[in-house]
Amino acid sequence: MTEHNFPELKNDLFLRALKGEEVDRPPVWMMRQAGRYLPQYMVLRRKYSFFERVETPELACEITIQPIDELEPDAAIIFSDILTVPQALGIDVQMISGKGPVMGNPIKNEDDAFSILSEDVPEKLNHVMEAITLTRKELNGRVPLIGFAGAPWTLFCYMIQGEGSKNFDKAKSFLYQHPEASRHVMRELTSATIDYLNAQVDAGAQALQIFDSWAGLLSPDDFNEWALPCLMEITAAVKKDVPVILFAKGSWYALERLGFKSGAAALGVDWTIAPEFAREKTRNEITLQGNFDPSHLLAPIKEIEQKTKRMIDRFGTRRYIANLGHGILPHVPVGHARAFVDTVKNYRKN
Amino acid sequence: MTEHNFPELKNDLFLRALKGEEVDRPPVWMMRQAGRYLPQYMVLRRKYSFFERVETPELACEITIQPIDELEPDAAIIFSDILTVPQALGIDVQMISGKGPVMGNPIKNEDDAFSILSEDVPEKLNHVMEAITLTRKELNGRVPLIGFAGAPWTLFCYMIQGEGSKNFDKAKSFLYQHPEASRHVMRELTSATIDYLNAQVDAGAQALQIFDSWAGLLSPDDFNEWALPCLMEITAAVKKDVPVILFAKGSWYALERLGFKSGAAALGVDWTIAPEFAREKTRNEITLQGNFDPSHLLAPIKEIEQKTKRMIDRFGTRRYIANLGHGILPHVPVGHARAFVDTVKNYRKN
Repeated sequence: MTEHNFPELKNDLFLRALKGEEVDRPPVWMMRQAGRYLPQYMVLRRKYSFFERVETPELACEITIQPIDELEPDAAIIFSDILTVPQALGIDVQMISGKGPVMGNPIKNEDDAFSILSEDVPEKLNHVMEAITLTRKELNGRVPLIGFAGAPWTLFCYMIQGEGSKNFDKAKSFLYQHPEASRHVMRELTSATIDYLNAQVDAGAQALQIFDSWAGLLSPDDFNEWALPCLMEITAAVKKDVPVILFAKGSWYALERLGFKSGAAALGVDWTIAPEFAREKTRNEITLQGNFDPSHLLAPIKEIEQKTKRMIDRFGTRRYIANLGHGILPHVPVGHARAFVDTVKNYRKN
Repeated sequence: MTEHNFPELKNDLFLRALKGEEVDRPPVWMMRQAGRYLPQYMVLRRKYSFFERVETPELACEITIQPIDELEPDAAIIFSDILTVPQALGIDVQMISGKGPVMGNPIKNEDDAFSILSEDVPEKLNHVMEAITLTRKELNGRVPLIGFAGAPWTLFCYMIQGEGSKNFDKAKSFLYQHPEASRHVMRELTSATIDYLNAQVDAGAQALQIFDSWAGLLSPDDFNEWALPCLMEITAAVKKDVPVILFAKGSWYALERLGFKSGAAALGVDWTIAPEFAREKTRNEITLQGNFDPSHLLAPIKEIEQKTKRMIDRFGTRRYIANLGHGILPHVPVGHARAFVDTVKNYRKN
């Protein structure tokens, strides 16, 4: 591990909320805050392909810091993609405009599945570590930097289905038709993700988020069998002083287990989960992050302000990180995103 | 209303379960049971376009009865599509193979929205009524015939988005940007759906199902504001002696309200909802229908049998209709679908 001399952190609100400390107002950031709703991002998007942006540390760094300059949220998240890990495992990923990711060689059978091996993943994704180290320096301690990875179940979905899908029926069918081969893939993904996240920590990530975007496609029993064990193994193996946020979208039914068995410092919640429900299931003991409906950022600014305040009222200021319930939509006006961030920053208890 | 002399019903298990009567074993049917997994359906699919099949009463009748002949479930559901109502309201719907429905003239602005008017919907969809009357006769009382419609919120999603979508972001954005115009569309859809369902009853439908396939995209507050009032209005206006099943997919958070406020005879539940959770929220007073994960029909037959039995054990035999948690997938072997149906039919309380 390289020793870094990173600048001192000036805003530790986000890390304090993750530790459950008493704070004056909740920290705020937005999933996909480095994204298409920002005109300065669109300039780079027109110049460079998606993977050029991801794989060039200077570009990833610039893109990561754009929303920090523009909106001043309380955390930065490294600009990258969850599909970097499948790429490192030999899956060809193309990002097709208007369609999303498409895999050139999805897993089609048991042989394909058993050929997936987790080897040298951090080395293969060294550009991500470089981007993290550079960004951590360039941020100059303004806010903490979050690293991230996709959860094994969600990566499995893409690696089998070969593209985005409403129900990932091919991936789910493969799971039930080929449980042993599926288990092998999950194991390799888990191992790759552990190495990847720990390398991100070594490179300078101060917190980690795991995205299980398709958790909500599984029944509670299948989630327990297939998704949860991977998440538990990952959080247990991540370097101890770095907090992990688990965002298992749609897994309302697993909040209790995720909260008390996964070892996570915080849980992301989507907008279908009422704050009171999430607090009850996690007995008010776990930091929660979310859950503003991204579509509500298209509402008039007055309504965004009211709804944001109401959300904080309901979650409470302690053990809470204000965020959206999923990524920000591309056509949100910057002023609306700013209204969301500013409302949280101006929030005061009663 | 025409007077029909329909043949006497020989298997009333489904209707008895809807009334909450004590039964020896639960009734069973499968959403999309008239569909692509059946070779006899594929023969007609190759010969006729989707809307030829929907709009020709003899074809719709033949397709509706195919799974009854093949698998002998306890109910038939008329072969049709939820997008017939948008069509009757002037939306052009094309069914594109491999992509799903595409609207030629989606609602783009407030003027488009306010131009939507519910007029003569049953007359414009008379082919559906003819198909129902013909099928009811041809079924010869073997099993009851279910009519159906899409819920206003779900139809609104398609009419704005213009095609299927993971998150229907355009439709949701429109809702929050143009609430008055959206309310107008919902009102017209509600009124159209009431007329449509009552015409189906007059034509011979013995039960009705309302599909709110995209309910799960709304927050609980938005569901209460936008989706639930339409559902309540529809169930209240449907002819009294005909039971209504509400299937609001993904709306686990609304089970209690759907159960006790919607006026429905039964609720459909998807596979992310544990039977115990659904029973608790509906205080064991409402008939529940579901919730086998459609992907599990790709598992080996032994497992299908075990999982189906376990599902019934958990829901109980009373106030229960065995079904999938969503439509059957096209690539399920017929023998696997049969294993599901037969396991329910052979189930006995011990």
